[in-house]
Amino acid sequence: MDHFADRLLAAIRTKGNAVCVGLDPRWNSLPAEIRSRHSGDTLEAAAAAYDEFCCRIVDRIAPLVPAVKAQCAFFEACGPAGVATLQRVLGRARERGLLTILDGKRNDIASTAVAYAEAAFTGFALGNRLHPVWDADAITINPYLGRDAVEPFLVSARKSQRGIFVLVRTSNRGSGLFQNLECKGRPLFLHVAEAVRSWSRENLGQSGFGDVGAVVGATHPAELALVRDALPEAILLIPGYGAQGGTAADIAPAFRGDGSGALVNSSRAIIFAFEPDDTNWEEQVESATQKTIAELRAATSMSRL
Amino acid sequence: MDHFADRLLAAIRTKGNAVCVGLDPRWNSLPAEIRSRHSGDTLEAAAAAYDEFCCRIVDRIAPLVPAVKAQCAFFEACGPAGVATLQRVLGRARERGLLTILDGKRNDIASTAVAYAEAAFTGFALGNRLHPVWDADAITINPYLGRDAVEPFLVSARKSQRGIFVLVRTSNRGSGLFQNLECKGRPLFLHVAEAVRSWSRENLGQSGFGDVGAVVGATHPAELALVRDALPEAILLIPGYGAQGGTAADIAPAFRGDGSGALVNSSRAIIFAFEPDDTNWEEQVESATQKTIAELRAATSMSRL
Repeated sequence: MDHFADRLLAAIRTKGNAVCVGLDPRWNSLPAEIRSRHSGDTLEAAAAAYDEFCCRIVDRIAPLVPAVKAQCAFFEACGPAGVATLQRVLGRARERGLLTILDGKRNDIASTAVAYAEAAFTGFALGNRLHPVWDADAITINPYLGRDAVEPFLVSARKSQRGIFVLVRTSNRGSGLFQNLECKGRPLFLHVAEAVRSWSRENLGQSGFGDVGAVVGATHPAELALVRDALPEAILLIPGYGAQGGTAADIAPAFRGDGSGALVNSSRAIIFAFEPDDTNWEEQVESATQKTIAELRAATSMSRL
Repeated sequence: MDHFADRLLAAIRTKGNAVCVGLDPRWNSLPAEIRSRHSGDTLEAAAAAYDEFCCRIVDRIAPLVPAVKAQCAFFEACGPAGVATLQRVLGRARERGLLTILDGKRNDIASTAVAYAEAAFTGFALGNRLHPVWDADAITINPYLGRDAVEPFLVSARKSQRGIFVLVRTSNRGSGLFQNLECKGRPLFLHVAEAVRSWSRENLGQSGFGDVGAVVGATHPAELALVRDALPEAILLIPGYGAQGGTAADIAPAFRGDGSGALVNSSRAIIFAFEPDDTNWEEQVESATQKTIAELRAATSMSRL
């Protein structure tokens, strides 16, 4: 298996775009046909509906995009059945050749972070073998606890050629409260970016990109450019495109001149690009994916890939 | 149901101590009798072993302490079966009259944070009713994303009289990398503490404490005192006691003069206070709990409760 960044870059080149589809299932927005089939009066029924919905989306978009990002919160909200669904959806995405990002924003002190990291990547060592839990290609993590809390994720990722995306500048409106605090002459998020640069440089792939990337919201275009400059070897994972208000022009600075260096996530604008009663919802999801790809190719250097 | 801080203070007064037992099950440290009974070659077997181990600990310590803190990472590492175990262990603790803290250090942008918050507290609204998921009394959260990302936790907690503990200064050795960065004349963690103060003051209980507390490691005694001064109305949740190196004397500054204001967590030093082959391990867990209580009563104002 190759270095995470090389695998991601290869997938982006093969598909001709750097769009990641966010799998954020929400009960009230599901197609009516799925909701009616699963009744929705238990957490298990909701989990089964999410399973069908996400797997059908994965099947539709797998030929089009390089990656999916699954948002843990929506699956965990269905309890154990939701967590089983998350495992199955990640497995379906892998089978269909998609790279998988587990969006859990996990963080904890070292000995506990080991448990999160092994669940994400190498698997839980029991008896004489490793038991895969999420088996994701990458996970999102929160940096507030510092390097020693990030270390277990780096160790597990590097044993298994996976990747990490560290929150640097998040897409929410109020993210500046701490992330933009001026610390020694520059905002906190640039201190985090500097740390990500050094972690990323520890393990570069043949593509020249590291296995540690940064999460930077599409909703902050000026800061996206600052992070791009600060992190030449990091792949930027960009949420906030579409439903959250980030435009294709806002995202242009995230790409390097050769069209590489960014992965743009869109969730609601793709997976809920229909009215609940529409019977052709999968076609609409496919069209929304193609529209997103076209918009980004028109407005960014992604077309040079 | 009363305000979270009032319930916690009442439980602390009833038990005469402010010790929280951390439920952090680790396969390799379990009693041999439990490991042999559950074979341990599947994630489901490990989850069943964690279930038995944690429930037996809960039964032993429930008469002694006011609260338990369950570390999500170790349960999630067993996949869906581990998550079902976490639900059962939290339920057992509730049945035994313990307050429950879900240590998940969750964080996400607003619409996603709603899913985490509802799972933690009010339950997932499906059909015409709310479906409890964790039904915890409190959750730990990471503040890096700012107030609007904390808001959904506040809303769900306040609807259901629950509490939140915000990471301020974590117990790990490298936590200063960002938390101690000098920002506008003081370290980042004091900016976070200042935010926690204003969030906490929004909803004070009759005890005078708010429903938003702060996590501050026992391993940083000087900073513990700074946070205590900065946050007069916040309950401090103190990890890092015992196995991580924090002593009872280190923790003394976390308590107010009247003995209130802090909840001290100990995980490994209590739940693994035995050798795997010991057959009397439950007695040793009970003794370690009583020893922790005695140490803290001797070295802090907790004895004035």
